[in-house]
Amino acid sequence: MTIADRWLLPDGMDEVLPPQASRMEELRRALLDLYYVWGYDQVMPPPVEFLDSLLTGTGTDLDLQTFKLTDQLTGRMMGASADVTPQVARMDAHSLKRQGPVRLCYCTNVLRAKADQHQGGRSPVQVGVELFGHAGLEADSEIVRLALASLTAAGAREIHLALGHIGIFRSLVEAAGLDDDREALIFDALALKSPGQLAARVSEHVADPALADMFLALGELHGDASILDEARERLAGAPVSVTAALDQLEALSQAVLAHFDASLYFDLAELRGYQYHTGMMFAAYVPGYGHALAKGGRYDDTGRAFGRARPATGFSMDLKQLASLAAASPAPGSIWAPSTDDETLQTAIDALRRQGERVIQALPGQRTEPAEHDCDRRLEFIDGRWQPTALTRETSA
Amino acid sequence: MTIADRWLLPDGMDEVLPPQASRMEELRRALLDLYYVWGYDQVMPPPVEFLDSLLTGTGTDLDLQTFKLTDQLTGRMMGASADVTPQVARMDAHSLKRQGPVRLCYCTNVLRAKADQHQGGRSPVQVGVELFGHAGLEADSEIVRLALASLTAAGAREIHLALGHIGIFRSLVEAAGLDDDREALIFDALALKSPGQLAARVSEHVADPALADMFLALGELHGDASILDEARERLAGAPVSVTAALDQLEALSQAVLAHFDASLYFDLAELRGYQYHTGMMFAAYVPGYGHALAKGGRYDDTGRAFGRARPATGFSMDLKQLASLAAASPAPGSIWAPSTDDETLQTAIDALRRQGERVIQALPGQRTEPAEHDCDRRLEFIDGRWQPTALTRETSA
Repeated sequence: MTIADRWLLPDGMDEVLPPQASRMEELRRALLDLYYVWGYDQVMPPPVEFLDSLLTGTGTDLDLQTFKLTDQLTGRMMGASADVTPQVARMDAHSLKRQGPVRLCYCTNVLRAKADQHQGGRSPVQVGVELFGHAGLEADSEIVRLALASLTAAGAREIHLALGHIGIFRSLVEAAGLDDDREALIFDALALKSPGQLAARVSEHVADPALADMFLALGELHGDASILDEARERLAGAPVSVTAALDQLEALSQAVLAHFDASLYFDLAELRGYQYHTGMMFAAYVPGYGHALAKGGRYDDTGRAFGRARPATGFSMDLKQLASLAAASPAPGSIWAPSTDDETLQTAIDALRRQGERVIQALPGQRTEPAEHDCDRRLEFIDGRWQPTALTRETSA
Repeated sequence: MTIADRWLLPDGMDEVLPPQASRMEELRRALLDLYYVWGYDQVMPPPVEFLDSLLTGTGTDLDLQTFKLTDQLTGRMMGASADVTPQVARMDAHSLKRQGPVRLCYCTNVLRAKADQHQGGRSPVQVGVELFGHAGLEADSEIVRLALASLTAAGAREIHLALGHIGIFRSLVEAAGLDDDREALIFDALALKSPGQLAARVSEHVADPALADMFLALGELHGDASILDEARERLAGAPVSVTAALDQLEALSQAVLAHFDASLYFDLAELRGYQYHTGMMFAAYVPGYGHALAKGGRYDDTGRAFGRARPATGFSMDLKQLASLAAASPAPGSIWAPSTDDETLQTAIDALRRQGERVIQALPGQRTEPAEHDCDRRLEFIDGRWQPTALTRETSA
């Protein structure tokens, strides 16, 4: 093996160097502080769990994304966490068991066996919040507003918010009495945004002409707020749960727009996370990024597998992507200290560091210059005490 | 599978709930801030790498601790990081390639296939620093002082510092011309602290009587600073590198004690990390903990496998253990807000949150009380504006 081979990192498993790592740390703190003041308590899920716990109720998408490991202690299969949300739902259902609404947040590494085609990385730093125990619009509205506040804190200036509701498609499937295979065929055609395929499959598998028209309408119902009015017309004969979903989307968009300036987009055929979402879904986009930077929605009853079905809504983001939205705050210059092992010097260095100043002490024989270490001052012994003095370009060159 | 089964977590893979997670976050920030003011730049190593990179030059101990994964993209074996230090050495050698001393720090999850018998957890949060590019005592002294400062920041009051030097045993092995098998036999007897076994193996495998006495002496040379004087007598005929190691330990202990009040312990038969350590080694203990809370030492030339041999010294700790040293700072009470969707209320909430106040907004129908959410004030509309007022025990019960 050559030296070059040892340097290679697996695709999508990235190292983060300075100053990008500081930028991520800065943003991590800003977001966790934001969630704190909104009342969200931080949790840290285990990075590895038994596969049974990790994949219960989450569907095959997550299974395919999960790295499998054998536990040498028990011989059981374990999986590395690929999505923190189901883990946090378990913590709410089993470990915390609190009454009433529970607000939780997290920021942690996850691992994905396959790169997401829209996002690339297999080692995202997932940051997000979950709100358990409340089924109402107010909880969804708080979650969407907090997602928008997160993107703003990360430096986003112009945000496009896409809203959908998984209940619309699901209600139509139920009304049409589709079995799993037929549901999957129509689901795929909608997900692929293929009108021709959709028309062919609907005409083959949906007997009721009114319902068939509604499935076809779904494929076209995306755009600005006027889409909701159009949907009310074209889905007028649908089950009452479809009307309820449209009402929810309208109320949600109004509650969010009352507090945030975002451009809205509706897509009633959005089916992301179909296996676990149960209500409204959203995705937030920022110009210049081809994929959503924040994704979330309602996923009630995930905790049922752990003994406690609870309403749940939340969102998550990848801190690595988010940190690229804006540059780090410019770091203040550091102070260079000589390598002298002098007690008065150490006392001066300690005092400056306690004030938050960054003091880099030279090591004997060191040949690099203060300016190479981002120093703009140096400690000098003047008038009987150590004082930081400005580094001129001459002395630092 | 029953619900109880789904709740089980693998041994040593822990979840961290509130308030312990906040305590860890608080300590994480305090430590990374400490390393920042000492001039250390944060890096984030990849959580998974190809096994070849991960285990190059690190020996079999780390191999056994590393979870193995197959990369579905390439079919190559990957490993989950079980120790960040070799990864940071690669980053210094290959990715950064800076001239002169380089100071790096990190705080990240690692995974261990087997529980360390002294520490329990298989999912530690490893936090530490590495100083590359300087072979002198000053670098080692800075590292030891920074380790002690870290424990102090975590709340340790009384610290016991154990010092050793891997060069002493290694020099004697070389002088005695021991092959690998014989070296391993004597190493094991020393590591097991078994005087009888040590005596038997030394008499069988070390021909030179003076060197045999020195190996036997190693097993006894542990204790306070007087041990160094005793070592100079009993190892008087040893190679000059042994005397140099003793000089280094003496100078290091003096440099550290000049700035820190720690009780010192020397153990010249300490052989931890024999496969990669190259010089001084240290471990810091706190009463009430049966294992070291900080461990470090010199490990020159790890970067050689990546094309650049560099002097290196550093230490690491487990943030989970460290966070148990002291309780979290008491959190200030939160403010309860009614569930009203009122624009003036939202403005008041936003303003309080911007000041760092934690405001928890009730959700319609919520039956839990403000005091259950650690609130000591509630927002009330008084004299035409929303104001936080103290919650009396009566109203909150």
